[in-house]
Amino acid sequence: MKDNFDMEYLLELVETRQFRRLKELLIEMNEVDVASFMEELDSEKTVVVFRMLPKELATDVFACLSLENQQHIINSITDVELRGIIEDLFVDDAVDMLEELPASVVKRVLQNASPDTRKLINQFLQYPENSAGSIMTAEYVGLKKTMTVEEAFAYIRKHGVDKETIYTCYVMDGVRRLEGVVTVKDLLMNPYDTRIEDIMDTHVIKAVTTEDQEDVVESFHKYDLLSLPVVDHEERLVGIVTVDDIVDVMEQEATEDFEKMAAMVPSEKPYLKTGVFQLAKNRIVWLLVLMISSMITGGILGKYENAFAIIPLLVTFIPMLTDTGGNAGSQSSTLIIRGMAVGEIEPRDVFRVVWKELRVGAMVGVVLGAVNYIRLVIMYPGNEMICLTVVLSLFVTVVLAKTIGCVLPIAAKVCRMDPAIMAAPLITTIVDAFSLVIYFQLACRLLNLA
Amino acid sequence: MKDNFDMEYLLELVETRQFRRLKELLIEMNEVDVASFMEELDSEKTVVVFRMLPKELATDVFACLSLENQQHIINSITDVELRGIIEDLFVDDAVDMLEELPASVVKRVLQNASPDTRKLINQFLQYPENSAGSIMTAEYVGLKKTMTVEEAFAYIRKHGVDKETIYTCYVMDGVRRLEGVVTVKDLLMNPYDTRIEDIMDTHVIKAVTTEDQEDVVESFHKYDLLSLPVVDHEERLVGIVTVDDIVDVMEQEATEDFEKMAAMVPSEKPYLKTGVFQLAKNRIVWLLVLMISSMITGGILGKYENAFAIIPLLVTFIPMLTDTGGNAGSQSSTLIIRGMAVGEIEPRDVFRVVWKELRVGAMVGVVLGAVNYIRLVIMYPGNEMICLTVVLSLFVTVVLAKTIGCVLPIAAKVCRMDPAIMAAPLITTIVDAFSLVIYFQLACRLLNLA
Repeated sequence: MKDNFDMEYLLELVETRQFRRLKELLIEMNEVDVASFMEELDSEKTVVVFRMLPKELATDVFACLSLENQQHIINSITDVELRGIIEDLFVDDAVDMLEELPASVVKRVLQNASPDTRKLINQFLQYPENSAGSIMTAEYVGLKKTMTVEEAFAYIRKHGVDKETIYTCYVMDGVRRLEGVVTVKDLLMNPYDTRIEDIMDTHVIKAVTTEDQEDVVESFHKYDLLSLPVVDHEERLVGIVTVDDIVDVMEQEATEDFEKMAAMVPSEKPYLKTGVFQLAKNRIVWLLVLMISSMITGGILGKYENAFAIIPLLVTFIPMLTDTGGNAGSQSSTLIIRGMAVGEIEPRDVFRVVWKELRVGAMVGVVLGAVNYIRLVIMYPGNEMICLTVVLSLFVTVVLAKTIGCVLPIAAKVCRMDPAIMAAPLITTIVDAFSLVIYFQLACRLLNLA
Repeated sequence: MKDNFDMEYLLELVETRQFRRLKELLIEMNEVDVASFMEELDSEKTVVVFRMLPKELATDVFACLSLENQQHIINSITDVELRGIIEDLFVDDAVDMLEELPASVVKRVLQNASPDTRKLINQFLQYPENSAGSIMTAEYVGLKKTMTVEEAFAYIRKHGVDKETIYTCYVMDGVRRLEGVVTVKDLLMNPYDTRIEDIMDTHVIKAVTTEDQEDVVESFHKYDLLSLPVVDHEERLVGIVTVDDIVDVMEQEATEDFEKMAAMVPSEKPYLKTGVFQLAKNRIVWLLVLMISSMITGGILGKYENAFAIIPLLVTFIPMLTDTGGNAGSQSSTLIIRGMAVGEIEPRDVFRVVWKELRVGAMVGVVLGAVNYIRLVIMYPGNEMICLTVVLSLFVTVVLAKTIGCVLPIAAKVCRMDPAIMAAPLITTIVDAFSLVIYFQLACRLLNLA
């Protein structure tokens, strides 16, 4: 996507120290764009530019900066300036930042926060990772059911300016228990003297702080929400999740699944910002596990040394057999893992899934077998029994691979493991072993090698 | 996620024909939940229940139903009822439905639409698949810049009820060219006599109808938007995209990438609703391509028949070598493909990426090689040269696999192909061939088999 502003020109203004003109332009820009412009500057200039921003824009820009620049700015500004930023940041942005900063910086930040903010931040820092609590924020509009629409508007006009969303308002009783929601649209569509309790929706879709963020995403997806209230175990409202954070969570969850399914430990940071050592660490565990598993496959091959000592030609079909089996199995496992991730497939669907995969496997197996048979009789005339062995093994392997590929992710889910580990790499290794046993068993029988 | 209502009880009410009680409950429910309840009914009962819903809820529920049920209801209701639904549906929902329905049903639907609606639907049906135009809707609030805040509120109160979002309003000139946006929050935070032109934001983030939906997702993600205006090539506003549709697009795009990366043609429908024949068709093309590619690998093996006729032990290390190479390459390609999909990695980063992967490959290769060496000298004492051959081949294979895995997706992007095809299956096949050549070349030299 191209930028919405002239990066070159802005950088030139910094170079030539035309700060007044620069400030004029920056004030007109979106905070996201200002942040991405600042990421291009060296760290000294970053602080200079940051200081020329008006206070409100400064906080918004700060929330969009990279962790490195946030830390650098915190270290370069006065306590008074820092205090202003901390109090203006949304709690969720502050918490995201504090979770990653070194302890000494965190300490200085918290020392400069007001007691209320500090308490709130500390509370938010305690929610488990990937829970609803960890992605919520505290800046919502809370109303009373006895208010009229007019009073509600007055309240929103007065307090709404630093709320993350004003469009959905939450109605609570005296002990902050959630009683209903009312949208600004509802308020606009009703006369001023209507009481909130008469128009609020009491069937509130909500989450509990400890709920998994994937379930929260599921709710947003299902009900097309803009925000979702989060309550504690006593049903008291503690925060809200807004749809912009859900967009981030969805991208992050999908990335994690891609990584897990390619046999890696998911990375905390984007690829280009992850160190070589960390990348290697994320990959080595599964590579070792899979390497050792494939040694077992090698061991199986060792048992049939006699067979390929007699007919070395047999060996040349191994890559085709194992690769095709692995691919066939990975296709199934990918569809099932993804289907379960988006909530379309449940473990109770296991029989429907297996029956489907068996038929798909049979169809695909017949086509692949036929193509192979034609090729083999042309290339190796007079070796009909070898051709038959290869084609039969291929067919059985494909059907078996499809079955293994769909059963294992479901089994993982039933055992409360992450289905994503039953993806291509592990399925391929497992199918490899099976396909070789089938191949050489068939070979020994059909070609009388035993 | 558990349901927000008592499905069992509702089904019992249908069974025992307690329709009055049922209606009372349904009216209180969320339209999404009513729809998922109706999906559990047989088709005759679906129509009975649908007819008991009040008109407005009926349209909302209709938009959430499966295509089968939508079609069944269209075929069971009168023209008058149909007309009501079509006029009340959001254009994007109507278009999504019409794109999938059989021609005869589409004809009846369009005949019952008003001329204006019909024209709009026909226009929307023409936007290319996966373009901004194909996911936008026409129900937005349009204001004039000469209006005051008070007039704007009056306009929204009058016309806002059937808009998809009222929270962002679009300011246009006489020929519908977009001049700015103003949010309901801006309106609420300003006095009633303020003129729109004084508070509207003229730096509008927008899309063009023909733009790819992935770029639209990118904009929502970057700027935390709730809606985005879509303009035609003459800068005239033709529709808006709302964030709930973006959530759907993100899920759909990720699913497509998972499918492509597992060597399948992406499916139009969810897994459980896709027929066996269609599933087989989606999978067979790539399986065939990859099978034929792996025959080439087999051909390479054939060249070294002498080698493993002399030392059959060599064959038993093939699965370990090819599997590890494949996995190492897939890890890299997955990270790069995903990084490019979310806009983090660009083709111009190719040298940084390759340099990173070379170092990661070397680290990982050393560890894997060391583990293997220890195992081999224990299991096969006296075969030091074979051990050395295997370990050296493993190291070179891993480093090469990492390089191939990161270069090919970037190369695909440069050639304007979809990087997702350069995923695990193809990388594995390519790496297999290379690893075998390396292995047997080393074996022939180190073990004097030539």
